[in-house]
Amino acid sequence: MADQHTQSPDGGGRQKVASIRWDELPEGPVLVLLDQRRLPAEEVELVCTDPPALVQAIQTLAVRGAPLLGIAGAYGVALAAVRGFDVDEAAGSLATARPTAVNLGHGVRRAHAAYRSAVAGGADQRQAAVAALVEAKALHREDAAASRQMARRGLALLDELLPGGNHRLLTHCNSGALVSGGEGTAFAVALEAHRAGRLRRLWVDETRPLLQGARLTAYEAARSGMAYTLLTDNAAGSLFAAGEVDAVLIGADRIVADGSVANKVGSYPLAVLARYHHVPFIVVAPVTTVDPDTPDGAAIEVEQRAGHEVTELMAPHFPVAGAGADAAGGVPVAPLGTQAYNPAFDVTPPELVTAIVTEEGVVSPVTAEALAELCARSRQVTIS
Amino acid sequence: MADQHTQSPDGGGRQKVASIRWDELPEGPVLVLLDQRRLPAEEVELVCTDPPALVQAIQTLAVRGAPLLGIAGAYGVALAAVRGFDVDEAAGSLATARPTAVNLGHGVRRAHAAYRSAVAGGADQRQAAVAALVEAKALHREDAAASRQMARRGLALLDELLPGGNHRLLTHCNSGALVSGGEGTAFAVALEAHRAGRLRRLWVDETRPLLQGARLTAYEAARSGMAYTLLTDNAAGSLFAAGEVDAVLIGADRIVADGSVANKVGSYPLAVLARYHHVPFIVVAPVTTVDPDTPDGAAIEVEQRAGHEVTELMAPHFPVAGAGADAAGGVPVAPLGTQAYNPAFDVTPPELVTAIVTEEGVVSPVTAEALAELCARSRQVTIS
Repeated sequence: MADQHTQSPDGGGRQKVASIRWDELPEGPVLVLLDQRRLPAEEVELVCTDPPALVQAIQTLAVRGAPLLGIAGAYGVALAAVRGFDVDEAAGSLATARPTAVNLGHGVRRAHAAYRSAVAGGADQRQAAVAALVEAKALHREDAAASRQMARRGLALLDELLPGGNHRLLTHCNSGALVSGGEGTAFAVALEAHRAGRLRRLWVDETRPLLQGARLTAYEAARSGMAYTLLTDNAAGSLFAAGEVDAVLIGADRIVADGSVANKVGSYPLAVLARYHHVPFIVVAPVTTVDPDTPDGAAIEVEQRAGHEVTELMAPHFPVAGAGADAAGGVPVAPLGTQAYNPAFDVTPPELVTAIVTEEGVVSPVTAEALAELCARSRQVTIS
Repeated sequence: MADQHTQSPDGGGRQKVASIRWDELPEGPVLVLLDQRRLPAEEVELVCTDPPALVQAIQTLAVRGAPLLGIAGAYGVALAAVRGFDVDEAAGSLATARPTAVNLGHGVRRAHAAYRSAVAGGADQRQAAVAALVEAKALHREDAAASRQMARRGLALLDELLPGGNHRLLTHCNSGALVSGGEGTAFAVALEAHRAGRLRRLWVDETRPLLQGARLTAYEAARSGMAYTLLTDNAAGSLFAAGEVDAVLIGADRIVADGSVANKVGSYPLAVLARYHHVPFIVVAPVTTVDPDTPDGAAIEVEQRAGHEVTELMAPHFPVAGAGADAAGGVPVAPLGTQAYNPAFDVTPPELVTAIVTEEGVVSPVTAEALAELCARSRQVTIS
């Protein structure tokens, strides 16, 4: 089950956003998530004491963002083991809670493998649970370190592509501290530019239908003191036409063998606009986002979400009768019975991607060979 | 002042949407508008008895859509004359109520010229007012006839470009009976295809920030019994990539001498996507939308609207404390203090427009010469 705990917003000043943490309470260990559905209006913590609560939190987007889903998945396996649930069953339901994000399955498998390896080595249930938790915490730490590397490499790439600094960067969806054990992926690069005094403006796409840009990226940008401006997704074209965008920076939910990138719906139109206007289109993601087993973009399963996300408006604090935090539903805008097309992601082919920035290195141009080489190098690093 | 009158929705079955009408009440003539801000939840009539009420209705988008704004502007001049207001002053404030739509100024000037011509010819105030009203009614009738011609010519063009019928058409914003004295512009073409049994599906962009697609186009599509599907503006890219769009059909707020088209923000990204995917991009608009005095796209003044349209969610029936129909404001989504970039329109250059369909003929390819010739022909028709 999940419990809630509301923090006073801004109570502690501009402290770091903690999107996920493992907590050892007297009544037992819990996984604590910042409920991203309630931001920016409220900072509410969601306390998960069992795997089904975490699966629900993932499916309702209380917790979201590719790298963070991996960490959440790993902690979920540890939670199942520590609390005495069926670990294989929990790993299965967590890994498939959302189909497109590859990191989720990666994190689950990693903690699950540590658990099984401990069991196979003769460990008892408690010791195997500790092994899973140690692995989840390692993934959490590694992700924070990867964020720092991506930020550093991403800014170096920007400076190379766009000499002189003073960057005007456009981003879509949310890819900051809220998706990560660290400061994020694409957003971390913008933050690095900001700290180095080389960010002129961050253009923030609102990102319909769930408004992760307006709610989450704007929240993180405001907290960090960046110059940022929010826009409707369809207004990005005007910015490109006016020459107001120097580069597009986005995250990724899955990068497949040929270099095709699945990311939040609306990324692909930005890639087409960027190409048409000769603007770099840069994907920032940890190596764990690369899925070498899926051959190309056509083979990516894109999650189709419920139509009411489009036909109804939803926002934090909508006074919808009887609707709790988990209730689906908002204020209808379209006529009743309207059918909606609502893919959660789209796929950008490699020829539209200027570069993929990872913690291990930058891939540019994006080819199957270069990606395979990166993955091989990354495995060596992990093994050594 | 403006008064309100709520009709029971669907009370009279699927009758034609009357977006504007002149009514001779016992207490004096009035201009009655369907309040488009309240659709599709309620069909509320807004009764304007003076020019300032109409200016406010135009600025708050209770009445909107390029051709309809022209008709409203002409009736506004007649209303000023009939009700004894300063006609020159009313014409000035009506013509500039919104900067981008050229039809508004055109309609105002036409009724104003009729009024002044009558006065110059020795007519008294009452007679001159009648002259303005006759002109407004003529414009209203002509616009309905132009709709029929555009629908016919537009479908013929579709059949030529895409033999075999079974069209899957994508549209943006609203361009149906709600913007017109007749059945509209781009939407009228889709409706003609539907009636001819040659429409497979109308893809309806929701059109942020004010959701004219979700609220108005979906409402008109549902009433007409079309197969239609709503999508977020940023999901159009996925449809193009999947080969699910045969043509894009949009209206226009201003078409300038070189063939650049100003239309609802989000039109230009669709034009770039259409070009990238080799899909026809068709603009449907009456000849009055052509503004030969503005040389090119760079010279078009694009209306910038208030940021709260983006930072707050607004929908019919939002239970916002103290907010009446005219109140600006909704439910905040972005952090307080967030700055927004909110252009109402964007500009598509002629090289991205496959064809411009008008009531007088189709311009394709779109060149300054072809447009000038069309305008000359249209003036001859009007004079003869």
